[in-house]
Amino acid sequence: MIDDTEMSNALLPVGFCDILPIDAEKEAFALHQIMEAFASYGYERVSPPLLEFEQSLLAHSGAGVAEQTFRLMDPETHYMMGLRSDITPQIARIAATRLINSPRPLRLCYAGPCVWVSGAKHHAARQILQAGIELIGVDSPQVDAEIIAITAEALGSAGICSVSFDLMMPQLAQAIIQTESFDYVQTKRLMRALDRKDVAAVQQYGGSSAGVLTTMLQAAGPADRAVEMLKGLDLSLDVQPILERLLTAVEAVKRQSPNVQLTIDPVEFRGWDYHTGLCVSVYVHGISGEVGRGGRYLSNNGEPACGLTLRPDILLQLVDYDESRVQRVFVPFGLTMNQVRFLRQEGYVIVMGLCADDDHIREARRLNCSYVYQDGHLHSVSG
Amino acid sequence: MIDDTEMSNALLPVGFCDILPIDAEKEAFALHQIMEAFASYGYERVSPPLLEFEQSLLAHSGAGVAEQTFRLMDPETHYMMGLRSDITPQIARIAATRLINSPRPLRLCYAGPCVWVSGAKHHAARQILQAGIELIGVDSPQVDAEIIAITAEALGSAGICSVSFDLMMPQLAQAIIQTESFDYVQTKRLMRALDRKDVAAVQQYGGSSAGVLTTMLQAAGPADRAVEMLKGLDLSLDVQPILERLLTAVEAVKRQSPNVQLTIDPVEFRGWDYHTGLCVSVYVHGISGEVGRGGRYLSNNGEPACGLTLRPDILLQLVDYDESRVQRVFVPFGLTMNQVRFLRQEGYVIVMGLCADDDHIREARRLNCSYVYQDGHLHSVSG
Repeated sequence: MIDDTEMSNALLPVGFCDILPIDAEKEAFALHQIMEAFASYGYERVSPPLLEFEQSLLAHSGAGVAEQTFRLMDPETHYMMGLRSDITPQIARIAATRLINSPRPLRLCYAGPCVWVSGAKHHAARQILQAGIELIGVDSPQVDAEIIAITAEALGSAGICSVSFDLMMPQLAQAIIQTESFDYVQTKRLMRALDRKDVAAVQQYGGSSAGVLTTMLQAAGPADRAVEMLKGLDLSLDVQPILERLLTAVEAVKRQSPNVQLTIDPVEFRGWDYHTGLCVSVYVHGISGEVGRGGRYLSNNGEPACGLTLRPDILLQLVDYDESRVQRVFVPFGLTMNQVRFLRQEGYVIVMGLCADDDHIREARRLNCSYVYQDGHLHSVSG
Repeated sequence: MIDDTEMSNALLPVGFCDILPIDAEKEAFALHQIMEAFASYGYERVSPPLLEFEQSLLAHSGAGVAEQTFRLMDPETHYMMGLRSDITPQIARIAATRLINSPRPLRLCYAGPCVWVSGAKHHAARQILQAGIELIGVDSPQVDAEIIAITAEALGSAGICSVSFDLMMPQLAQAIIQTESFDYVQTKRLMRALDRKDVAAVQQYGGSSAGVLTTMLQAAGPADRAVEMLKGLDLSLDVQPILERLLTAVEAVKRQSPNVQLTIDPVEFRGWDYHTGLCVSVYVHGISGEVGRGGRYLSNNGEPACGLTLRPDILLQLVDYDESRVQRVFVPFGLTMNQVRFLRQEGYVIVMGLCADDDHIREARRLNCSYVYQDGHLHSVSG
């Protein structure tokens, strides 16, 4: 029945896929649960478009995703448009323009697909699904903690409970390096050593900060132990406030989310280009790579902002969606939908028969139904 | 606070927009209600990608939307990809390939954004939202009626009840014209006359079919009257079965959906290029232009199929979403989310205070809250 042309038409570009039953339903369920959780903490939904002019889409924090963004020419204006690869810069734009007069803190949430020019390390996908929150207008550890607590709760409401948050403070190592009078080459060499977590190289190239940086490298891991080690550091007056802010944020997170697993990576800075404070990677037991990320930054007009984006598409295999809850009822030909609508209200899925001479029980089984509705009753067809 | 650069960044290409609170929530609500209705009649969700190779995206029924489809080069393969302008051809592809072995009738539903190169007549939008159903594998009037009845119910569940369906049978006029021995020019002239509903021109150019076609033109309108007029037509043996099928389908629709408003346009064929049977335009009182459309066609591998796509984005202004249902509670700084989570379970929206010295009542009002939670109680801040 399926010829060669159909087979080649079934091929999709690498990184794009058809999501089939039951997975598509599962993804919609996870997304719904996550967005309900966001909404229940006062995060109001906005929905920016898939395409924008390049000039706005890739401005500010959007600059970081320019290489991952497909471009298209707008035939109306002949300006270039970008197919969004990240929704968060769009939210910053909306907060700084259309919602500039809304009361602060501005709490926004969003969900939708994005497209990448090429796939990421752990996932070949080039079409991804984002769902996230942003809190704009307040710079405090309580905000950082709120973002993390709501993310944990949103994941929990989709049935994903084994979550850990890796906390980072990209400015910390950068500020320490700046206290040294290193030239460009020396600075890059040390940063590469830190990026590789290469203790020997850090000790060799770290100058007078070698000890502090080595301790920070060794502190990476569970939050309680890391905090103890970091508290003992002897830092300059310029650097100390950055550490203090990290420690206060960790305290706030522990207070809001006493049950989540927290780790700290105090020297990490890679991939956090426009961030200005606490950064977060979200991991879930059983899935390799991040399932979400976020942090503190300055919004387009300089307002303090903190946000976090989840990837419901990656989480699919762990979503607590029980398809056996859905009981399908075969309704033989001849009954009208009005006559069986009450079944829908009782939570059954109705499958209308389309042929008068069907063998009802066989037809019900063939169509994956558990019951036939006949003579005003549900008759089980299992066994 | 907002400078010129930000203002120009706020400009979006014509036909693209930011959907802001409360509209974005409203759209998500309408979409959720519609998809729940589809699912409750056994339509299983599939989710095809935003981009596909041109070759598959624009094959079969996709050919009709080629002009409305943006193209992009895949840097991985150097093949051209299309950014989908319509999901229905993707569903036909999935039914003919990945789900070729699933039992028939195959009932599928889908929802998602599409992008058009240029806007349509009644709506400038170039990013649209589709939500629809397809039933594949059975050719019967009962299927046509089921598709329409479920669409009406889905709209009703989003609070949209004043719906009318305009039924068409594009083959009918075409088959009548073919009984005349007209050349290309004569045929085009008559088709243009029918398209313009120009009775005088139809009578002039209609040959021996002029009388039948004029009656059909005059029959356009409410279904009951139209059926009576069409029943009296004297048609050739080739054409009569097409009319019979239309009349049987109308009967089936009336039986499944006794309360929906039905009209028939028996000479309409424009815009129904790949359709092979009953076609439907959906209208809603208070909105100009179609809010949905669909009909019968042959799926990619020749299977009979019937589907209908709604446009939840157009319906927004009529969606029954009562934002006053959402009661916001201001929770003063110091309480943890664990301490107020029960409010969420009771259906309240929680707005966490972020500053210790807030005037709670003023802050609650400023943030659009109806209550402050204090000393274990909700205190109204209205009045």
